[in-house]
Amino acid sequence: MKPVIVVHGGAGSIFKDREEGARSGIIRAALKGYSILKQGGSALDAVEDAVVSMEDDPHFNAGCGSVLNEKGEVEMDAIIMDGKNLASGAVSAVKCIANPIMLARLVMEKTEHMLLTDHGANLFAKAMNIPEIPGEKLITERSWERWSKKLEADSNPQEDKKESGTVGAVAIDNEGNVACATSTGGLSNKLVGRVGDSACIGSGGYADNHVGAVSTTGHGESMMKVVLARLVLYHMEQGMTPEKAADTALNYMKTRVGGLGGVIVVSNSGDWTARFSTKQMSWATVKDDWLQYGIYTGEMHTSSVAEALGSK
Amino acid sequence: MKPVIVVHGGAGSIFKDREEGARSGIIRAALKGYSILKQGGSALDAVEDAVVSMEDDPHFNAGCGSVLNEKGEVEMDAIIMDGKNLASGAVSAVKCIANPIMLARLVMEKTEHMLLTDHGANLFAKAMNIPEIPGEKLITERSWERWSKKLEADSNPQEDKKESGTVGAVAIDNEGNVACATSTGGLSNKLVGRVGDSACIGSGGYADNHVGAVSTTGHGESMMKVVLARLVLYHMEQGMTPEKAADTALNYMKTRVGGLGGVIVVSNSGDWTARFSTKQMSWATVKDDWLQYGIYTGEMHTSSVAEALGSK
Repeated sequence: MKPVIVVHGGAGSIFKDREEGARSGIIRAALKGYSILKQGGSALDAVEDAVVSMEDDPHFNAGCGSVLNEKGEVEMDAIIMDGKNLASGAVSAVKCIANPIMLARLVMEKTEHMLLTDHGANLFAKAMNIPEIPGEKLITERSWERWSKKLEADSNPQEDKKESGTVGAVAIDNEGNVACATSTGGLSNKLVGRVGDSACIGSGGYADNHVGAVSTTGHGESMMKVVLARLVLYHMEQGMTPEKAADTALNYMKTRVGGLGGVIVVSNSGDWTARFSTKQMSWATVKDDWLQYGIYTGEMHTSSVAEALGSK
Repeated sequence: MKPVIVVHGGAGSIFKDREEGARSGIIRAALKGYSILKQGGSALDAVEDAVVSMEDDPHFNAGCGSVLNEKGEVEMDAIIMDGKNLASGAVSAVKCIANPIMLARLVMEKTEHMLLTDHGANLFAKAMNIPEIPGEKLITERSWERWSKKLEADSNPQEDKKESGTVGAVAIDNEGNVACATSTGGLSNKLVGRVGDSACIGSGGYADNHVGAVSTTGHGESMMKVVLARLVLYHMEQGMTPEKAADTALNYMKTRVGGLGGVIVVSNSGDWTARFSTKQMSWATVKDDWLQYGIYTGEMHTSSVAEALGSK
């Protein structure tokens, strides 16, 4: 099997001054994940590393750069899933951790559980020797400014909810194993303890070697209502292509519950797609040593991996 | 539409000395839910009241009577879902609340979110004037005894994990709306902050007027791996009866991930089933003023509602 990776940096409206950063970030993440796959690494390692790269990048709403909750704190959700045995690990509403996706993977590999939340996730991190960092280290100047503005009475509370930036990755490795990973700071100004789709198996992501892998982004509560990631794979089980399955599921989410979002998909035969019903979604993929990426509907740039690595 | 309610009091191995209590508890819950439906009440009200009745009953692993985590505390998960618009509310790892299912409903109705966790769920409860109760009030003498025993080196740590008792309900009302509710204390001796299927939409429950409603019980992590409740409804969408869909999904969970459990289902035409791959599951249903209930495979008692109310 030829390895494939697809990443996204969130669906929604990307601010003009953030486009370039988002573009570089998704390309970097896709190339990182692909280099693992090319060296014979697992889909699981590839999606984890790609997501870590975006968690560390302040352009995305995950890890450093996460949006703030109603109290001005960062609380993050993340999930990872192994398509081989349906094993999965997740954390929800976790604070003061640089890379929630790494903690999610430890939940999968080191516990009998699948989801650890809040304080319990931090206790587990401590037991695993994952260092806590000061919460402020995850807060960028921009996140803080935008959050502060929201407190003004004349701001529009709906506008900021559109801030996108959840990150995710799906991959298939040369053994035909698929995996997905999703990580987010969630909704701006959310209630303390709000958990979105990204910690919820089937909604924020799903991976099954019998079908493929999906990572989602967009309005979390809508994606939960339709269990979006699993829905895409059901459609593929019924014979749809990844693209048709993604569009059908996104269209259903729009008509049934009025929600917008985006998905990245890889099938167990290596077909992939990146589709969205929002105005934009930053995405990138590498297959056959060719990098492709875009942000707007219909936008797709292509370059060789060698060229992309050279220009980095 | 003739109203129907089905409840369960958990799948697993029910201790002999607990059978009678479980039987009375599920019958009481089913009759409570049915009386609401008969008076023209909503499926949502019926499943909530049925689950509250079992949360208040120390025979079940939900509310008072919940099993204890590794620290000897009660941490509870609950979800409720409205099949009309796919709205849902849930709480995870919540402490010191008598009826988590009532809090889950408030999350659905009073916030823009679907899942609040841990400390955040308690902050929300406070804002809603839901009183906190001392954690000890949820701990029965039996829960405490069993938890204490587990600390002895010579106990069998696997045995207690089989303690069942998650509770749930599904219903259809006379307007044809379906709903589900699930509530649990989770796994005995779980890590602090472990969240199971019961807080996770699609795994612990799902309700959709276009198909039906499902509540699940059993090994939480296995049910999450296969997104069990949603899986049952997919099979029904493909034309299977509730019974066939339940058996197909439970069998898949057993063969794919080695997990056992049980489900209760009501279809949008009022057909119902209660199926399980564990040794036992306590369940009860009322339809057409007839009560049916059982615990063991193949066991089904029938009596009129009037008779059952008389003997209460």
